[in-house]
Amino acid sequence: MSKEIIHTIRVEFGDCDPARIVWFPNFFRWIDAASRYFFVQCGVPSWQETEKTMGVIGTPLVDTHSRFLRTATYGDTLDIQVTIPEWREKSFVQRYRIMRGDELIMECDEVRIFAGRRADNPEAIRALPIPAGIRALCE
Amino acid sequence: MSKEIIHTIRVEFGDCDPARIVWFPNFFRWIDAASRYFFVQCGVPSWQETEKTMGVIGTPLVDTHSRFLRTATYGDTLDIQVTIPEWREKSFVQRYRIMRGDELIMECDEVRIFAGRRADNPEAIRALPIPAGIRALCE
Amino acid sequence: MSKEIIHTIRVEFGDCDPARIVWFPNFFRWIDAASRYFFVQCGVPSWQETEKTMGVIGTPLVDTHSRFLRTATYGDTLDIQVTIPEWREKSFVQRYRIMRGDELIMECDEVRIFAGRRADNPEAIRALPIPAGIRALCE
Amino acid sequence: MSKEIIHTIRVEFGDCDPARIVWFPNFFRWIDAASRYFFVQCGVPSWQETEKTMGVIGTPLVDTHSRFLRTATYGDTLDIQVTIPEWREKSFVQRYRIMRGDELIMECDEVRIFAGRRADNPEAIRALPIPAGIRALCE
Repeated sequence: MSKEIIHTIRVEFGDCDPARIVWFPNFFRWIDAASRYFFVQCGVPSWQETEKTMGVIGTPLVDTHSRFLRTATYGDTLDIQVTIPEWREKSFVQRYRIMRGDELIMECDEVRIFAGRRADNPEAIRALPIPAGIRALCE
Repeated sequence: MSKEIIHTIRVEFGDCDPARIVWFPNFFRWIDAASRYFFVQCGVPSWQETEKTMGVIGTPLVDTHSRFLRTATYGDTLDIQVTIPEWREKSFVQRYRIMRGDELIMECDEVRIFAGRRADNPEAIRALPIPAGIRALCE
Repeated sequence: MSKEIIHTIRVEFGDCDPARIVWFPNFFRWIDAASRYFFVQCGVPSWQETEKTMGVIGTPLVDTHSRFLRTATYGDTLDIQVTIPEWREKSFVQRYRIMRGDELIMECDEVRIFAGRRADNPEAIRALPIPAGIRALCE
Repeated sequence: MSKEIIHTIRVEFGDCDPARIVWFPNFFRWIDAASRYFFVQCGVPSWQETEKTMGVIGTPLVDTHSRFLRTATYGDTLDIQVTIPEWREKSFVQRYRIMRGDELIMECDEVRIFAGRRADNPEAIRALPIPAGIRALCE
């Protein structure tokens, strides 16, 4: 079982394109914030902290699959429901359902990893085993 | 068969996050530009034009599936290879392969529609049948 | 006298650059949202509405002057204090003070106009006289 | 005397807002890239390099003053003319003129510093004296 966290955002004028609807990369901006917000609400420290304590510098994406069902526009308030329905050995699935009231606007399943720097090349990253302490906080 | 168009971008300092790698929503920003660039290179007029001539206001996303294989950072030059491998009745698949030289950084398959405004509510959009003239330009 | 409205934002991981501080164009993203939020809180309808009722399509910038005093990073909560200290004939000054608690992070004075479409070319815009009804709501 | 470097960008659909003109924070995104591009074209290494060799992690803004003269929209190609008209002891003025052909769209004067990390707190930054080697490359 996973906790469910709701991250609420307002759609701004500048988030919309000349067709007057949300320009879709902004959905991924909000999803990335919602991913982080999930961990914060579960009690996981900032990546700045975890880099020092366990070498985790963030949770980059491996795979993302999204469906866009309805458009949204500025003035809308959107609730992003976030869960982690699946933990794998070195990755996890983070799920998002973006709602405007009862309407589903967009849904997204991501595969993310906990990333650390590589010893031989600090500019490169590698997938770490799921930190047990972080997982426990999220379930 | 589809034409293949290459859209080249530079990764900027501000495109990268505190982990010093491209912040992933920026990949979607570039992909959206590459999608448009594909049509421009094939000779399709701007959406401002097509709105007047055939009611097409743009090509919003219905579904997107991406895999992230390698990280990129600022200073990198990336080539986005764009094709349309599949045409359906009211949608099409647009495919992107983002390369740094010979290395595949990210790949993405999108389902997009040609959108028009709805007669009963100009703020809402609907999927139009694939405009034959546009398809002919892209093949 | 002007009303003062406070628009609160969270700084996200993706808002920061490889130097781990807010990438400055994001301050302008927040300021633009704060500008709009000011009008909403004062009771001014959405630009979609005002376009129909009085031809106002938005409040584009003419001039902006900003000073950056302290850096901010992800995890910070910032309060943007918004006022309109000056009304001119066809423009107004909108002022922002971005605070983290008692610390001033950034301050910005903008000159904006109320823009309408030009009769001879709907793609071009022109400055409208300050709408008295909007001004009354903001004072 | 300063070198003048021209950084060329294309305005994309997603760079424009519901008023169909460039959403202004994007001008600052381009300016920030143009600032960096200026140094690259002058032969200054990446900030990743300079952090190791001289402790310079980037050139954050202290002050920026911009005037917006004409609107731009998607499909436009813009040339950003970049110079450094003034060097001070611990800061410099970087100037931008954004042109569409012969038309001046926007102009901006920035005060930037060369930033290093503070010894007592690596998360905080401080202004370094202008590195003579970098200045020589830019004149």
